[in-house]
Amino acid sequence: MSRIPVDPARFLSDLHALRRFGGDASSKGVRRRALTEADIAARDWLAERIEEAGLEARIDPLGNVFGLAEGRSLLLGSHSDTQPEGGWLDGALGVIAALEVARAAKEAGGPPISVVSFEDEEGRFGALTGSSVWAGKLSLEAADRLVATDGTGFAQARAALGDRVGEFVDPARFSGFLEMHIEQGPVLHEAGEAIGVVTGIVGLRQVQVTVRGQQNHAGTTPMAHRKDAFTLAARIATALPERFANIVTPQSVWTIGHIVLHPGASSVVPGRAEFSLQWRDIDADRLDRMEAAIMGLLEDVAAESGCEVTSARLRHDLAPMPMDPSMQAALSAAAEAVAPGRWRAMPSGALHDASNLAGLMPVGMVFVPSIGGISHDFAEDTGEDDLVTGLQVLAEAAARLG
Amino acid sequence: MSRIPVDPARFLSDLHALRRFGGDASSKGVRRRALTEADIAARDWLAERIEEAGLEARIDPLGNVFGLAEGRSLLLGSHSDTQPEGGWLDGALGVIAALEVARAAKEAGGPPISVVSFEDEEGRFGALTGSSVWAGKLSLEAADRLVATDGTGFAQARAALGDRVGEFVDPARFSGFLEMHIEQGPVLHEAGEAIGVVTGIVGLRQVQVTVRGQQNHAGTTPMAHRKDAFTLAARIATALPERFANIVTPQSVWTIGHIVLHPGASSVVPGRAEFSLQWRDIDADRLDRMEAAIMGLLEDVAAESGCEVTSARLRHDLAPMPMDPSMQAALSAAAEAVAPGRWRAMPSGALHDASNLAGLMPVGMVFVPSIGGISHDFAEDTGEDDLVTGLQVLAEAAARLG
Repeated sequence: MSRIPVDPARFLSDLHALRRFGGDASSKGVRRRALTEADIAARDWLAERIEEAGLEARIDPLGNVFGLAEGRSLLLGSHSDTQPEGGWLDGALGVIAALEVARAAKEAGGPPISVVSFEDEEGRFGALTGSSVWAGKLSLEAADRLVATDGTGFAQARAALGDRVGEFVDPARFSGFLEMHIEQGPVLHEAGEAIGVVTGIVGLRQVQVTVRGQQNHAGTTPMAHRKDAFTLAARIATALPERFANIVTPQSVWTIGHIVLHPGASSVVPGRAEFSLQWRDIDADRLDRMEAAIMGLLEDVAAESGCEVTSARLRHDLAPMPMDPSMQAALSAAAEAVAPGRWRAMPSGALHDASNLAGLMPVGMVFVPSIGGISHDFAEDTGEDDLVTGLQVLAEAAARLG
Repeated sequence: MSRIPVDPARFLSDLHALRRFGGDASSKGVRRRALTEADIAARDWLAERIEEAGLEARIDPLGNVFGLAEGRSLLLGSHSDTQPEGGWLDGALGVIAALEVARAAKEAGGPPISVVSFEDEEGRFGALTGSSVWAGKLSLEAADRLVATDGTGFAQARAALGDRVGEFVDPARFSGFLEMHIEQGPVLHEAGEAIGVVTGIVGLRQVQVTVRGQQNHAGTTPMAHRKDAFTLAARIATALPERFANIVTPQSVWTIGHIVLHPGASSVVPGRAEFSLQWRDIDADRLDRMEAAIMGLLEDVAAESGCEVTSARLRHDLAPMPMDPSMQAALSAAAEAVAPGRWRAMPSGALHDASNLAGLMPVGMVFVPSIGGISHDFAEDTGEDDLVTGLQVLAEAAARLG
């Protein structure tokens, strides 16, 4: 293998240049929702950089931007759309690092490396829409029926791409996919480490729990007569840690992020509580055991209280997605070469486009630290030295794989 | 004293007649919000019944309907407006029972008994608006600034009363006030008792609690790093019973009826939880001790979690309002005479117009059972025998007081 001579200054310059599209005036943050004017302008800018680098720029019918090397190549990239009030690095970092590695490799005469920026990873319309359709997990027809909360349909929005659009790119031309991304969690930052080699993307399950108690007057109903749906919901939430105690690892997580009480008035004993309960783990068996513990708890609370406690899946399960061992090996070797002793293997708690591609080709991911673990927020940031270390690890791994 | 020869059949007939105004087609329920067409038509109907009974009908500028006996008299009554989807007895029972007792007394040549149906007890505009203004607790100017959730102002709504409106009635002409009402709770029904003599109306305090944690990604934030505002809210809710254990009686109540999480998404660790916490008791000292226990719990949760937990009063405290001893004595004697061994003394957990009048004159209240404790619901009901027993107790007490 020969090293790929990346240029950190050029990389950082392009990273800041991309930030200008939708950049917030008073912070580092960005507003660049999928297929908005700012997002399409950023994609045009990226296509120009790709052409300058001597790669073939291609915007597919979804808005995914490719920078194609000739023949069979390794694909690097991420996404350049953002949350409504997003950070400047989420997605953008992986795209610009990919651009720099592909550009430097082209200048150095190889290996052949292609670039991609997927569209709508952040889910203005669906979730990971661009990579889902490209990977064949979602039909274009189904995607076109997706509608953003502002009422814009995906079909209508992507029509704004106009004559930029070329043909779909055949996934078979790529030998594998590497995605560099900010961690979006606190682990690397708190440990003072520079690199996370992702072992897999955690699986996710979610139920909507409904507790049906008895709606009553909050003045005239003695406590002993009450079937208070919120009290039961609170009991479920506080009992989860002990129910999970012999099951979970420090990397298992669970969240009640949304709850609604009916009728939701301060002078009425809640007759119904509905809440989301989501859990994530890298191990499918553990997801099963957590689910069994949850269901056991719901049954126990129902039996003790005489209330109906039901649960329903409101989204598809996401199975844990292990990263390819050869990709992990290349990234680990690269991390040890660039940042010896300052990296770790770790799961990704967040979803990424890489999940969608894992069925098509070998896939690997590498994380850099998020300061304070903050993401999906204008305050999202990463130290410049860590950004450059990430770039170098990505280049080193690409060289080893190329 | 001489008995007042009430006519149960006439009473029940009028009670059903009043139900027709706003009556639901497929249940016993009623929609008769204050100052709607149905409410004003019901007040016209009541004024006609009052005139037929030989009393002076008077609709005051608030829409309160009086049936005035000559000279100084005992006032009986309640309200005839309802909740948006109300029961047929809440308020209406006390008005029609008052009408029957006043009518029968008039026919029997005494004692002099007047009738009232207050306006907007159920709070379309404020809360207990008609009796609050009449009792001088709220200015007419302030009441006129109240606006219903549909945007209708009280001033605009009461203008619909047109030339029905007469002068305000001077409270000084009344020797006392008795209100008969459904219990709106399960105590009498479950005990198989017919009558509750109200000892007082419980006091009420309410705070809005805000827990400020740290909003985070529900996949990338390890449990040990989280400051989950909902988890803390649930801990507060579940810890309340033990904190109250040595303070409360079986008649003390507390309720968390409303909660909002921010941002309220299933994949985001809640950064903020805001919830109402209301408590009621007949004893002001106990309300104080419950408040101290709540504040101690909030401080402890804040200290353990490192999160900010604050509370703010969002409504005025309502002090416990004891009923007049001579009124209680008259009602107790009447209850024992009409339903020996089948009555109890009990506090009222709900607010009533009687609270507002307690500063003006001696006030008493009497309850009849609510089947299943259900109220503020189309399903609200009371057995016909209990309705008649209530009427007879009211008549007996009025005779003793007259």
